[in-house]
This record gives sequence, structure tokens and C-alpha cells, in this order.
Amino acid sequence: MLADLALPATLTARAGALTVRRATPTDLPALMALLADDPISAARGDRADTADAATYEAALRSVLDAPLNDLLVVDDATGALVGTLQLTVIPGMARRGATRLLVEAVRVASSRRSGGIGSAVMQWVVHVAAPATGTSLVQLTSDAARVDAHRFYTRLGFADSHIGFKRTVGS
Amino acid sequence: MLADLALPATLTARAGALTVRRATPTDLPALMALLADDPISAARGDRADTADAATYEAALRSVLDAPLNDLLVVDDATGALVGTLQLTVIPGMARRGATRLLVEAVRVASSRRSGGIGSAVMQWVVHVAAPATGTSLVQLTSDAARVDAHRFYTRLGFADSHIGFKRTVGS
Repeated sequence: MLADLALPATLTARAGALTVRRATPTDLPALMALLADDPISAARGDRADTADAATYEAALRSVLDAPLNDLLVVDDATGALVGTLQLTVIPGMARRGATRLLVEAVRVASSRRSGGIGSAVMQWVVHVAAPATGTSLVQLTSDAARVDAHRFYTRLGFADSHIGFKRTVGS
Repeated sequence: MLADLALPATLTARAGALTVRRATPTDLPALMALLADDPISAARGDRADTADAATYEAALRSVLDAPLNDLLVVDDATGALVGTLQLTVIPGMARRGATRLLVEAVRVASSRRSGGIGSAVMQWVVHVAAPATGTSLVQLTSDAARVDAHRFYTRLGFADSHIGFKRTVGS
């Protein structure tokens, strides 16, 4: 949990008012559906299979229990869960001791894209969450296949300055 | 601090025996020199300026005090500090609740490159540190200009599957 975040936060997107709040176990079915609502994630095993519910519940508890981490969800004005993201604050030595805010697993429901939800949430991350958590650099990686996402992050002022490498353990 | 890491660890590189251990405030001058010993880092402000010593000391304490984080240094057989890296364990929901091991700020002294130090350390990260910390995915980003580093990570089994985006806060 990131105690420094003032939550819930109310944002305004083209699609209407949004609420950003901390995820709870009640959100698990909607969160699993949101992760599966994406071909790249589904190919990695996020298939909203009810047999995986205990696995995701344990993962949610791990994130919420981890200091310097938070799992957030985004509700629209009707209370429907339309997005999620994870934030991790990472102190560090490089860049003159810069503390970073890592954004992972950003998802917006496929039926609700192009309504400015992702933009409103990422603007909140950069302009509200980052200063609130004392971080001077926001960073994330995006699968090379997500070309639309890359344009989106570039428009929001992110530089595509790095290559993101991943390696599965045990292979 | 990552309590699950068995440190110090002894590794064998082509250049000889190496010791991976947790950094201490005594290492600060060598760590500052190592960060500055790189044109890309130096351009971002890591210049080993003694006026910055208190800033780096505070950053080191922040990393060592942060649960799920550790700042490591690598000594050669003579006790000279020849490398550093930061590890961060990140629980998460995506990839069926995978916990990730993020590697940041990997540096090997420029005078000691091509001796297999980086390779021995990264093999230790993947095959020892990742299992010890319960992580199933190791990830890192590398500046797009570091072409030699990209070949290095690819040889070690990392996939360059992602684009790394960064945004300075307040700009």
C-alpha cells in the first residue's frame, strides 16, 4: 500500500467522471476479466479462469501488503470497474539518487477505450501520484506489439528511450 | 533489504572469483565513481561530485531500508569494488499473479569489462537470486543507446520484447 496516495481520487475524462481507488478482494472477478480482456495478456495465461481465482486473490493480497506498492482500480460514474494499474515506488542510486514510480499492468476495458480513460489516469499518475509519493521519474514498459499504446505514452510526454528485457526463470 | 538472499555470494567469472554482497555506506565513494564511470549516467547527473555525497548516502539508506529492495556490490578477488546492481521484488496480478524481480542500475567498472563479471552476476540473478526471492520473471530496461548491453542480455536468454518509457516528473 502507498499510504501517501490520497484515495479515492476523482478524475474527469472525456468519457465522464472516474474514481481511482485501491483494489479490494471484491474486485477480483472484474480484475481477472480485465486482465483477460487483452490478447497479449491472455496468451501469457491471464484467462479469467475461475480455477485461478485463489492464485489471483493471493497475488492481490501480496501487492496490497507490500510496502511501496499499490493496486488501483478505476470506476466510471456508474460504478463499473473500467481500468486497473499497479504502482511501485523504487528508491535508487542512479540519476543522483532518484526515486522512481514504476507503472505496471495498465489495463482499460476494451469496450471503453478511446474515451480518454487511460489518458486521465496516466495524467493523474504523472501529476498527482508521482509528486505525492516523492518520485521524480515515472517509468513503464509496454510490449513491443502494443503500437497504439506506444503512441499513447509518447503523446503523454514519455520518451521511448529504453529497451525492456524479460526472462522467465527456470528456462 | 531482501532477507531471502544468501549474502555474501561467491561467484566465478573468467576474470576470477567475485563476491556479491549488500552495499554499505563505506562503499559510497566507490559506488559514486562507478555510476559516473559511464557517459550515459554522467549525462544524467551522476558525476561523482563530492557535493552530492549526502544525496547518494540518503539514497543508499532508502534502498537498504526499503522492504523488497536491495543494493548489491561486486568485489573482485583483491577486494576492489568492480560492479553494482539493484534488485526489487514486485508482486503483481498479471501473468497469473507472477512476482517479478526488477534489476536496475547494473554497472561494471569500465576498466573491468569483457572479463565475464556482468555475465556471472546476471547468471546469479537469474539462477540464484530469482528463485531465492520467489520470483518467476526477471526484467530490466536498458537505454536504447547501449547496443553492447542489448547483445549481452540477449545472450543471457532475455527477450527484448518491450519498449521502456520514462517521463521526468515536473516537466
